[in-house]
Amino acid sequence: MISLADLYAVFTAMVPLYVAMFLAYASVKRWEIFTPEQCSGINRFVATFAIPFLAFNIISSTDPYKINLKFILADTMQKLLILFVLILWAKFTRWGSFNWMITLFSLSIMPNTLIIGIPLLRPMYGEECIGLLVQVVVLQLVVWCPIFLCLYELHAAKVTMNGKVRFTNDTNEGKEGDEMMNVEVIFKKKNTPADECPVGDLAHSNEREVQGEVTHPRMTTTNLFLSVLSKVMKNPNTYGSVLGLIWGLISFRWNISMPKIIHKSVSILSVTGLGMAMFSLGLFMGSQRKIIACGKRKVILSMVVRFIFSSTVMAMCSIAIGIRGIALKTAIIQAALPQGVITFVYAKEYQVHEEVLSTAVILGMLVSLPVALIYNLLLGLT
Amino acid sequence: MISLADLYAVFTAMVPLYVAMFLAYASVKRWEIFTPEQCSGINRFVATFAIPFLAFNIISSTDPYKINLKFILADTMQKLLILFVLILWAKFTRWGSFNWMITLFSLSIMPNTLIIGIPLLRPMYGEECIGLLVQVVVLQLVVWCPIFLCLYELHAAKVTMNGKVRFTNDTNEGKEGDEMMNVEVIFKKKNTPADECPVGDLAHSNEREVQGEVTHPRMTTTNLFLSVLSKVMKNPNTYGSVLGLIWGLISFRWNISMPKIIHKSVSILSVTGLGMAMFSLGLFMGSQRKIIACGKRKVILSMVVRFIFSSTVMAMCSIAIGIRGIALKTAIIQAALPQGVITFVYAKEYQVHEEVLSTAVILGMLVSLPVALIYNLLLGLT
Repeated sequence: MISLADLYAVFTAMVPLYVAMFLAYASVKRWEIFTPEQCSGINRFVATFAIPFLAFNIISSTDPYKINLKFILADTMQKLLILFVLILWAKFTRWGSFNWMITLFSLSIMPNTLIIGIPLLRPMYGEECIGLLVQVVVLQLVVWCPIFLCLYELHAAKVTMNGKVRFTNDTNEGKEGDEMMNVEVIFKKKNTPADECPVGDLAHSNEREVQGEVTHPRMTTTNLFLSVLSKVMKNPNTYGSVLGLIWGLISFRWNISMPKIIHKSVSILSVTGLGMAMFSLGLFMGSQRKIIACGKRKVILSMVVRFIFSSTVMAMCSIAIGIRGIALKTAIIQAALPQGVITFVYAKEYQVHEEVLSTAVILGMLVSLPVALIYNLLLGLT
Repeated sequence: MISLADLYAVFTAMVPLYVAMFLAYASVKRWEIFTPEQCSGINRFVATFAIPFLAFNIISSTDPYKINLKFILADTMQKLLILFVLILWAKFTRWGSFNWMITLFSLSIMPNTLIIGIPLLRPMYGEECIGLLVQVVVLQLVVWCPIFLCLYELHAAKVTMNGKVRFTNDTNEGKEGDEMMNVEVIFKKKNTPADECPVGDLAHSNEREVQGEVTHPRMTTTNLFLSVLSKVMKNPNTYGSVLGLIWGLISFRWNISMPKIIHKSVSILSVTGLGMAMFSLGLFMGSQRKIIACGKRKVILSMVVRFIFSSTVMAMCSIAIGIRGIALKTAIIQAALPQGVITFVYAKEYQVHEEVLSTAVILGMLVSLPVALIYNLLLGLT
């Protein structure tokens, strides 16, 4: 059973996050302290500095040689299994579609592990679970985000192939006939105000804009790869997590600690990460016209996928692989965290169900605490 | 003598502040990450949330019953002595003027104690000096900032009396004939872009703006008082420091500690204070056309006043009152910190030598570390 002391510990960890979020929400909705453009300044700071520094700090201070391989295996299995089912569904059923496949995949495998997961699970299961969560975070940032970029780029190419584009000649045409898609994709991109993107503006960089028109480069496998690589390379989170991992590998291998002056230089911005990320989320909530931006059925679907489906599959995979105890509980609750904000940024950029992701992020934040407590309670009974 | 270990401790405390500042500077000047309006969003966050929460946190965790009365006396004596001399200079010499009096007063008594002083002096003199610095911070925010607002409001009234205004009738005229100034002040206010104000936009609030024109209320003693009071009441720093003081008085009197959940709710934003304030300073530096915005003579004047005059008078007052040891060293180095940013915000708002204050803030930051080390070295020899 969960004790009152446990409950208080969880509340003590989570309520401050909500306080920061609601202060930001009220700043926009009630006090009108920030203009939309000013909000986007704070969001950019969070995306460019606060979160990458936070990711570096957390990842670099966790021993990468204490990897729980089973945990990684279960995590990867959950994601691949869901992807496999969704691909079948998209290919072979009447209701299936590529864009819903991406959205449902995003809803089922991308929780907010870094910002919400770590502070929420620490009081529940102690330091033991942090190493496991860091593994998930590294994989999210280094593996799964690029995979999502691939899927979205493919989707953009598919959409344009289906008649919304004009095909043009290209000097490379013919030579690369064996490659996946041989069209030059030109499509209008709606104005996506940065103010609505917390942790935003990360992936806009490799498009060449002409007076509102965005020219995507020729979409071949090579180009797809280069396009995704360029986005990944321009994302500060990549540097934060890869450098954190490299430093972790060095420092725990040879037992070298970071010079204090460098450690403090990183810390001065990384300590802003949690508060600023929550503040940014609150600004995002405040800048949306509605908290629930999509229809009731989509809300229910996204909540079920996020909070029940995801953790059910994770529980199955973990048990199948033989994970037990705290690692199992961590895996399950981690899978039922609110939706990661980065997924909304992608959805908005590629205009694929951004209203569903926005709702999942916001509503997810609001219901995540009771959901996590219920899971904790249920898992405590076993 | 200062040891190498001491030196390293000071560098370890200060270099991270400069790293945050230069990242922000480069974001604006080189990488063009932030637009001016986006910068002002970050500055507003710092002014409205980060610094007030930081002030609350630091003040509330310092025992207000361990006041060093001598230290307060010396601090107050230094400020009043300088004010007295400057008033005489302004009244009775050919070169004296009211606006230069305010600027020189600002340069001599308003160092950046909260953001720079505390991290800089902690490694030099340990926790013993923090209580002393907090006393200075509280007095700065609760006493001296309002006094500066009074001086600037008086200056605004003086300027408009000297021919730049039209006098108008007022229902109160005559009744308040015994009061100081009986004019309605109407003057045009230059557009002061918020992007140039770090920790900015604090004191603009009680003016009623008409399509670019700002109407100051009727300037009488009562109105002066109300105007200053309203600005002080609308400044989040006031709440941060007064609430911090109240909580300190309660908690150290009855030995009550803050409930953990509230403490952490404050901390989540207050820990962003140091990094965000330095980042905001860097944005400010980056958004100025020149680091040195005023002529060479004014630069030398402001540096001499800030780094030599201020601490010399402080040393005299402290020794006269009988302060010795670490408290004396703290008093002297504290008086020679870089210029406080709030003073630039006021100067800009009232258009009184803002270029001098801007230079004092920026150049002050750059030279403050060597200056502090030289003072530390000299004081170590005694």
